[in-house]
Amino acid sequence: MDEQDSSKIGKALDGFSIELPSWGFANTGTRFGKFLQEGAAIDIFDKIADAGQVHSLTGCCPDLAVHVLWDFTDETPTQAVAAAAGEVGVRIGSINPNVFQDQDYKLGSVANPDAAIRKRALDHLLASIQLGQELGSSLVSLWFADGTNYPGQDCIRRRKRAFSEALRTCHEALAPNQNLLVEYKPFEPAFYHTDIADWGMALLLAKEAGPQAKVLVDTGHHYSAQNIEQIVAWLLDEQMLGGFHFNDRRYADDDLTLGSIDPYQTFRIFAEIHSCQQRDPGLVNSIAYMVDQSHNLKPKIEAMLQTAMVAQEYYAKAALIDWTILDEARQRGDVLDAERVYQKAFRTDVTDALVAWRQGRGLAADPLLAFRESGYLERVSEERSQRRERLGLGTGSSYA
Amino acid sequence: MDEQDSSKIGKALDGFSIELPSWGFANTGTRFGKFLQEGAAIDIFDKIADAGQVHSLTGCCPDLAVHVLWDFTDETPTQAVAAAAGEVGVRIGSINPNVFQDQDYKLGSVANPDAAIRKRALDHLLASIQLGQELGSSLVSLWFADGTNYPGQDCIRRRKRAFSEALRTCHEALAPNQNLLVEYKPFEPAFYHTDIADWGMALLLAKEAGPQAKVLVDTGHHYSAQNIEQIVAWLLDEQMLGGFHFNDRRYADDDLTLGSIDPYQTFRIFAEIHSCQQRDPGLVNSIAYMVDQSHNLKPKIEAMLQTAMVAQEYYAKAALIDWTILDEARQRGDVLDAERVYQKAFRTDVTDALVAWRQGRGLAADPLLAFRESGYLERVSEERSQRRERLGLGTGSSYA
Amino acid sequence: MDEQDSSKIGKALDGFSIELPSWGFANTGTRFGKFLQEGAAIDIFDKIADAGQVHSLTGCCPDLAVHVLWDFTDETPTQAVAAAAGEVGVRIGSINPNVFQDQDYKLGSVANPDAAIRKRALDHLLASIQLGQELGSSLVSLWFADGTNYPGQDCIRRRKRAFSEALRTCHEALAPNQNLLVEYKPFEPAFYHTDIADWGMALLLAKEAGPQAKVLVDTGHHYSAQNIEQIVAWLLDEQMLGGFHFNDRRYADDDLTLGSIDPYQTFRIFAEIHSCQQRDPGLVNSIAYMVDQSHNLKPKIEAMLQTAMVAQEYYAKAALIDWTILDEARQRGDVLDAERVYQKAFRTDVTDALVAWRQGRGLAADPLLAFRESGYLERVSEERSQRRERLGLGTGSSYA
Amino acid sequence: MDEQDSSKIGKALDGFSIELPSWGFANTGTRFGKFLQEGAAIDIFDKIADAGQVHSLTGCCPDLAVHVLWDFTDETPTQAVAAAAGEVGVRIGSINPNVFQDQDYKLGSVANPDAAIRKRALDHLLASIQLGQELGSSLVSLWFADGTNYPGQDCIRRRKRAFSEALRTCHEALAPNQNLLVEYKPFEPAFYHTDIADWGMALLLAKEAGPQAKVLVDTGHHYSAQNIEQIVAWLLDEQMLGGFHFNDRRYADDDLTLGSIDPYQTFRIFAEIHSCQQRDPGLVNSIAYMVDQSHNLKPKIEAMLQTAMVAQEYYAKAALIDWTILDEARQRGDVLDAERVYQKAFRTDVTDALVAWRQGRGLAADPLLAFRESGYLERVSEERSQRRERLGLGTGSSYA
Repeated sequence: MDEQDSSKIGKALDGFSIELPSWGFANTGTRFGKFLQEGAAIDIFDKIADAGQVHSLTGCCPDLAVHVLWDFTDETPTQAVAAAAGEVGVRIGSINPNVFQDQDYKLGSVANPDAAIRKRALDHLLASIQLGQELGSSLVSLWFADGTNYPGQDCIRRRKRAFSEALRTCHEALAPNQNLLVEYKPFEPAFYHTDIADWGMALLLAKEAGPQAKVLVDTGHHYSAQNIEQIVAWLLDEQMLGGFHFNDRRYADDDLTLGSIDPYQTFRIFAEIHSCQQRDPGLVNSIAYMVDQSHNLKPKIEAMLQTAMVAQEYYAKAALIDWTILDEARQRGDVLDAERVYQKAFRTDVTDALVAWRQGRGLAADPLLAFRESGYLERVSEERSQRRERLGLGTGSSYA
Repeated sequence: MDEQDSSKIGKALDGFSIELPSWGFANTGTRFGKFLQEGAAIDIFDKIADAGQVHSLTGCCPDLAVHVLWDFTDETPTQAVAAAAGEVGVRIGSINPNVFQDQDYKLGSVANPDAAIRKRALDHLLASIQLGQELGSSLVSLWFADGTNYPGQDCIRRRKRAFSEALRTCHEALAPNQNLLVEYKPFEPAFYHTDIADWGMALLLAKEAGPQAKVLVDTGHHYSAQNIEQIVAWLLDEQMLGGFHFNDRRYADDDLTLGSIDPYQTFRIFAEIHSCQQRDPGLVNSIAYMVDQSHNLKPKIEAMLQTAMVAQEYYAKAALIDWTILDEARQRGDVLDAERVYQKAFRTDVTDALVAWRQGRGLAADPLLAFRESGYLERVSEERSQRRERLGLGTGSSYA
Repeated sequence: MDEQDSSKIGKALDGFSIELPSWGFANTGTRFGKFLQEGAAIDIFDKIADAGQVHSLTGCCPDLAVHVLWDFTDETPTQAVAAAAGEVGVRIGSINPNVFQDQDYKLGSVANPDAAIRKRALDHLLASIQLGQELGSSLVSLWFADGTNYPGQDCIRRRKRAFSEALRTCHEALAPNQNLLVEYKPFEPAFYHTDIADWGMALLLAKEAGPQAKVLVDTGHHYSAQNIEQIVAWLLDEQMLGGFHFNDRRYADDDLTLGSIDPYQTFRIFAEIHSCQQRDPGLVNSIAYMVDQSHNLKPKIEAMLQTAMVAQEYYAKAALIDWTILDEARQRGDVLDAERVYQKAFRTDVTDALVAWRQGRGLAADPLLAFRESGYLERVSEERSQRRERLGLGTGSSYA
Repeated sequence: MDEQDSSKIGKALDGFSIELPSWGFANTGTRFGKFLQEGAAIDIFDKIADAGQVHSLTGCCPDLAVHVLWDFTDETPTQAVAAAAGEVGVRIGSINPNVFQDQDYKLGSVANPDAAIRKRALDHLLASIQLGQELGSSLVSLWFADGTNYPGQDCIRRRKRAFSEALRTCHEALAPNQNLLVEYKPFEPAFYHTDIADWGMALLLAKEAGPQAKVLVDTGHHYSAQNIEQIVAWLLDEQMLGGFHFNDRRYADDDLTLGSIDPYQTFRIFAEIHSCQQRDPGLVNSIAYMVDQSHNLKPKIEAMLQTAMVAQEYYAKAALIDWTILDEARQRGDVLDAERVYQKAFRTDVTDALVAWRQGRGLAADPLLAFRESGYLERVSEERSQRRERLGLGTGSSYA
């Protein structure tokens, strides 16, 4: 790799930071059960500590997304959370309300047929926005499980309008520095229709809500074969791309590690962002790069380290695309040469450049290896096992 | 069936008319070849004659969509076409430009990298709009094959902007009574990305083009498992539903007979329209119900007759949904009872009501049977075979 | 409907019985949580009571599938279970081992890299076969969650061979009246590869295991767009169809009510069975029709009643196909007429014939209505709520 | 890259040769039309010349598959074909009969309802086997378009049996050195059911036909999300993998360049073959690596050069997997480390090793560049354009 390429990669990585999800450090699983890990985080302070580890080793994960219901009980002192984060060098990132888990939300949250439940959901959203202001977070990230399981179950248009209204109300409650991210997902847990099923629905609702609302692209929330990078390109061009939830999948919302199934797609998504930065830098405002993965098999912290490293790898590769040569090939209609510009960047092994970037910041060449050698996991596993026992925390649940 | 239900069906059918596609009467096929039919239409006058047959037998197909390139050669006298249609009781319906077949369009039409080709495509679109005005047609229906086959081949955002510009120009050329329908399709013939790939893209482009532009839903142009009736509901609610291309599919854009693979989906799409007419009649303006099918195995005219009959059948069933009982079930959150309201309507055999509607109009009880007994196909098959020989028309093409 | 058709339906229904799943009466949900029902069954005796209700009302559900882990604790007296079933007129049907829930099975059961875990799983399978013998059940139904989440995670061929070996050992342990059903599923909970992913893999393993092993078709365990009825036809022709798990789905393994999303597919599956019974009755041995659904929204017992009724409805419709007319149309290559024979049967409203069949057995015309009027649900909800509280049973689990 | 890795790659490439398709040099397209190329081959002698170019530049494409109908007219002297191939250093590879293009095959070939057409198809298959013997080819490659478009159209089991019978008859006609490859495809051109829809059906038919029949895996003929490398692993383990048709796709059978959409999948497929060669070399007999692509946009010869180069690239990468380290990780259940072994090999840039391999054989470092500099395309384009005009060959066909 010549110096110019190394420099492109260095510059790209300097501007690329990734938010980790607090729930990525806790035990999660599938509907058939969870495979529990001794070292899994128990409370928000564990999660902050784990996120601090990942950030201190990778240097690129300064933010931690929090899930209101799972991270903030009535007894959790908000300021203590912010302080704990500060101590390990991370900030509280996006605030994620939870309006899907409570028994009340069986038939939906803000689109529930029952007005009292709709209000309850809205109140939680408004409280989450308020919590974000208290924590100094600039992002409220909304995912709704709302939908129906059977044809005829509810009126699709009534529910659409209920969403419009709720999101408008949320938007009015935003502080000037807060953005509202609207996520879409085709299915699961709703199996006949999901109220915000695709990027078009999220876009319409976000536009209607107001200028601080943007669309959140979860890379696992698409139909089979759907072209995600095209959606990213369109959202960029409409100035409506709020951010990403990184993960990978083969079938449904499998929540696997980014790039583990289709690494070329990860590269192509990043290519659209680099392309936009090249030609229309004004369109690329702050994009929130967030991880949303559910690791049932991989160790939690290792999985997050790997994700950050993989994201950097493909972001760096995409930074190597030679836009000048590409434009020439495109202009003369040379399909094959244009494709080869992409393939050349993708093929380039950027390992050394990543190591150089890390060493330039005093980071370990291989964060994963450094983590394994640190003994951190062994320490917290022991402590958390004991605490789990002390707290009488269960050992998982059964499908039926 | 009680009188009230018969009356609902009668009223529904009175307001339900279907446009036939001229190309549905010609020989078409798959990339592996066409199975030719002696009775297939050769020119626009044959197609008009065939469409006239379908309308005279079903009473519900008064319009004929035309494809500019296939139906109008330089020697085709426009007024003669309109006159021929008038003679058999049909009108020229939507005008369909063709900017995909010519060798120039290898890399796209209005999004081609080459400005001269973009202009050529735009000129054809404008000429088609003009043709529509001459023929007294109120619809211009736009399907674009534009897209790319390989990652990197072209700039997605540049192409998006080229589409915006072209559609705005088209919109400016519309007469006050003309509407522009923008169709979307996820793939084929483009296999990496299609410029207008989904309803969200079509909606953004149509909104940007102007108030006379609407979205066209081809029932075969969706991702596997995508909920089409939800898209219909959203488009209705946004007052952006321009019309349909009816067909059915299992895998890709298979262009099979409407309702042949998933009849319950056909019913549910119609249910959304009836629902909107019930609650927000103001939202349902003129929806163009059009057929777009490619029959390689079924006899062309019979397939169109069958399609019209099937469309009426499921439109009639959907008219039987009891919205009052449904609303009560929805309001009390009774998922199962709400579903059963849909199922009851779907289960009802409406054959007798359809026959009654036909007989009330002096039509045959079974249009397909009546057609077979009429001898029409035998007559035109003989004449067209001879004409085909006289004209030296080939007998199909080879894949490679 | 003429007498001949009524008679066909009556005869068909006489030979059509459905096995209910014990877990269908318990609280289940998605990975995002369970919506709990007061009336949900707590233990195997509740499940038997509920199944008894469904059978006494429908007359067509004489068997109850049991899940070894969920239904049989160390303290459950096997004979008491059989006796309780006998009291409400049902039999213990298929035995379902569970080798996916325990923490040991994180990396698989009989294909685990660890020989000790493989042995543990096999021991459970053998114990389940033994349990089946004790309970007088003739079916052991095997579903394996085994698979991997990441490329490279494990050796696909080693795992395949481990399965061959385990299933052969199981087969050797069967009593002469026992059959082994091998289920397949493309994904979930494994997301990169599932060891028994499709019918071809299940078939190879079953054939290798021995003559008492057959394939189990779960209607929700297929790729999008895959033709299930063709698989059924092939398995029938190979004499390898062991039975079904009935449910419906739109996206993944959604476990919705049979026929709720694609009723025509349900009809077509039954049509293949009727077709085989017509032409090659020798091929159709006992097919186990079983339900496997997970109801998070619908009341459990009502959902089972509805499922049984829907299954009967489409089984009855498929019995109306006129094979003579169909054969003639097929022989002369009349695609449209052949299709219309299917459509005619599907369109026929068989409600009255079902009512007649029920009344001829002293059953209520509408089992669902009769159940609602019986007060059963209110009684058990009260009793089970109290018992749940007494036993200190939790109120669900959290995703993270 | 160290010497050991270079040596692994060299050894792998030495044993890796690819068969080109004669139809890959002719004009092909989609059902919407063909974009014609001046340099496209007109007859079998052009195709041989073009294939010779590709082989002389890449050194890895010594075989040319032929399509009986498209390459052999009644006037084509069989021996002249073999001689022409010999002159440019290629051999005639697999023989591909064509039983889908003729009008007779509208309702199928060997499964047609009409016995006369079944016989005609079988005769063509037998003639193709005979032709293979005359040409010294050891492979007969069978792809059938047989299937139906509508539920009820034909009897699935009757058609299955017709296939069994036909393939048995074909097998009996094989010379001892001939193998029969049975290809599967889920859909297109049949849209309701395809007679040989998946690998399980192909396997059953091949096993029944006889020991010289194997399964052919076309990488584009699978359901969305289906795990192709698992199918490859199973076929290897069953000693039933006959070969591949290489291409890539995103949606349907898009026939794009291998590795252009999902390069990691290409790598994983090759990984299964290397894995089997490592552990069970006895299972890996001759696998026919064949290309089957339809280039509508890319220049034909360039596309073939690129395909050969890409195939070598990913075959070489997969050769770098460290099976020892992988086994250790798998054995200790380290999911993440096992995955990283795959990722390390995939990430390695093998460009230099490929260049070294080529230069060791006196080949150009970049065959594509060398081809462009050779002037071959310009020469044949001119000659073929003139010949096309002389022969009065048409300029494409219209969809409707």
